[in-house]
Amino acid sequence: MSHDDVIRLFAKTLRNLDQWMDKATTYAKSKSFDVDVLAQSRLAPDQYPFIRQVQSACDQAKYAAAYLGGKPPPSHPDTEQTFAELRQRVQKCLAFLETVHASDLTGAAERKVSPPWLGGKWLRGDDYLLHVAVPNFFFHATTAYAILRHNGVDLGKMDYVGSIPAKEG
Amino acid sequence: MSHDDVIRLFAKTLRNLDQWMDKATTYAKSKSFDVDVLAQSRLAPDQYPFIRQVQSACDQAKYAAAYLGGKPPPSHPDTEQTFAELRQRVQKCLAFLETVHASDLTGAAERKVSPPWLGGKWLRGDDYLLHVAVPNFFFHATTAYAILRHNGVDLGKMDYVGSIPAKEG
Repeated sequence: MSHDDVIRLFAKTLRNLDQWMDKATTYAKSKSFDVDVLAQSRLAPDQYPFIRQVQSACDQAKYAAAYLGGKPPPSHPDTEQTFAELRQRVQKCLAFLETVHASDLTGAAERKVSPPWLGGKWLRGDDYLLHVAVPNFFFHATTAYAILRHNGVDLGKMDYVGSIPAKEG
Repeated sequence: MSHDDVIRLFAKTLRNLDQWMDKATTYAKSKSFDVDVLAQSRLAPDQYPFIRQVQSACDQAKYAAAYLGGKPPPSHPDTEQTFAELRQRVQKCLAFLETVHASDLTGAAERKVSPPWLGGKWLRGDDYLLHVAVPNFFFHATTAYAILRHNGVDLGKMDYVGSIPAKEG
């Protein structure tokens, strides 16, 4: 399971997330409400709303790709307010992930990763992916999904998982 | 990022989950309600309740370890009804994960994994981990966490992530 595999899994899941937002938009139209109500929805008063869950999922993917690929993370300010803007944010993130190639990730397991929030400490690249990026990315993606499910959007497990490269024979 | 690393990450997250259940039990006592009310709680009427989220997280970890480690998955019937029983289920799963060693996982990337629900198709071991086990494990763990948060249990992101092997210097 290479680091490149994990970055591609993040990209796949962000494309799935874009489809959940598409389904939410269809649902809002069918119920005659403004889909951007869902952008502010949350599961608990002290947990982030949908907007911030999507921004955070994007950031987990972006920073993992940047730190492990040895590239500067592009600045994507958290200014989105609407579903349309959030879907653009996802596309911006996907475009950046495309610029990080498998060859950039050579040696990433042992790369020193020192994000500002670690206050001067650092993690091995592998540990950053395992203990930070993977759990947090799926945390925010799943919470975004859960906020939509909780509000009645017609989503199922296959929307979450997306396509699976199963083989015959 | 070895397959063994991922199995250990699942184990770490299940130990975190056990702590969330501990916090939920304390919260229920402080509010004088039966914690097992939370066992039946869910975020949407057509989504699984907390019990099934925990059982499913355990199963994703168990099957990944069994399939990739070339061991028969032990049978853990979904009979739990209470928090006490669910915490035992987590411990049973953790005990099984301990029996799958890094050496069992040699060559797991190319091992053919053919779970019954694929109807005769199969996945490369790496693809099973990436496209099935990792996203689904964190889906169920996060949804379990979200059900508790939604019901007022005092959980924060550090409870979700747990300890991080950051280094100094």
